[in-house]
Amino acid sequence: MPRISATKQAILSAALELGALHGISGTTMDEVAERAGVAKGSVYYNFASKDQLFGELLTTGVGTLSDTLREARLATDGFGRIEGMVNAMLTLIADNRALAKLMAAEIFRTDRVWQESMFTLRREALSEFAAALGPLVPPGTSTDARLLMASSVFGATLMGGLEWLLFSPDKPAADVADAVLFTFSGKLAAPA
Amino acid sequence: MPRISATKQAILSAALELGALHGISGTTMDEVAERAGVAKGSVYYNFASKDQLFGELLTTGVGTLSDTLREARLATDGFGRIEGMVNAMLTLIADNRALAKLMAAEIFRTDRVWQESMFTLRREALSEFAAALGPLVPPGTSTDARLLMASSVFGATLMGGLEWLLFSPDKPAADVADAVLFTFSGKLAAPA
Repeated sequence: MPRISATKQAILSAALELGALHGISGTTMDEVAERAGVAKGSVYYNFASKDQLFGELLTTGVGTLSDTLREARLATDGFGRIEGMVNAMLTLIADNRALAKLMAAEIFRTDRVWQESMFTLRREALSEFAAALGPLVPPGTSTDARLLMASSVFGATLMGGLEWLLFSPDKPAADVADAVLFTFSGKLAAPA
Repeated sequence: MPRISATKQAILSAALELGALHGISGTTMDEVAERAGVAKGSVYYNFASKDQLFGELLTTGVGTLSDTLREARLATDGFGRIEGMVNAMLTLIADNRALAKLMAAEIFRTDRVWQESMFTLRREALSEFAAALGPLVPPGTSTDARLLMASSVFGATLMGGLEWLLFSPDKPAADVADAVLFTFSGKLAAPA
């Protein structure tokens, strides 16, 4: 990863805080400069536009998610992969609450200039779940069906994680992972 | 439900189409009037502001989701309830694609004037899943944990449904429901 200047980092952090609070449309470059404690010219020196600034923030975020999921997937085998990936994703959400909220609000928008790169990266993150599901689904399951299952596992983890952050932020990450993973255990379909 | 005038309906439909295409911030009241084929005064006669217009669109949408989920829940019993609710929600998404996309982008935003009513209604939809899960989870499961499980089931269905609309819209709804429900079957944790 290229080295990032302290100024650029301060601008990205300020944009993240403001974007999570007021939305991207509700955030101006003036406010970002003020919050970051830098001159407005300095913001534009680093980012040509607000779109470029938030685009970089979001694509970096989805990239980190992919990397985290890949690492968790390669660390183990079988259904343990899904367990590890759910745990890793929830920890990442907890450690990056503002970014997680911003990403959740952006992930299905189709009116953004960064839409294509977000979709590509989202597909990359999904394909990590799809790869982990490969040995777990019946032989002959189509790629489409596997991607839908991957979306389900991803969506369950994302929505569980956001519910946690918004409504019970003091719960330990492991309890949240247990609740999400319980829905995949089969015990709902066949209660003891 | 109160009777809604043809003009009001045309304005709501135009707002929905434009909002799904360009986002709420990227849509103006002028454009809504033009698309609806009504005078701008007529838009403001029916809705005091753009916020009120989109707020009504979104809260009506989440209300319909709650009603649909409740109806599916009351139609049957046991895990069949989850099956029925997943199917009903996917059918609703397919029949209201623009609204589903708009809602997905709005559901976790915290900078909107309609935030509180969206959260209340979202919680209502979630509580339908939580109610269906009641008899399926181990005795002693906390309300918090049950809501997290409900979020997981809801998130899996929502994300599976949006993946479907965006990337394989020609697949039959039943195939999508099968893929989503497979993730809850327990067969991932214990492949045959």
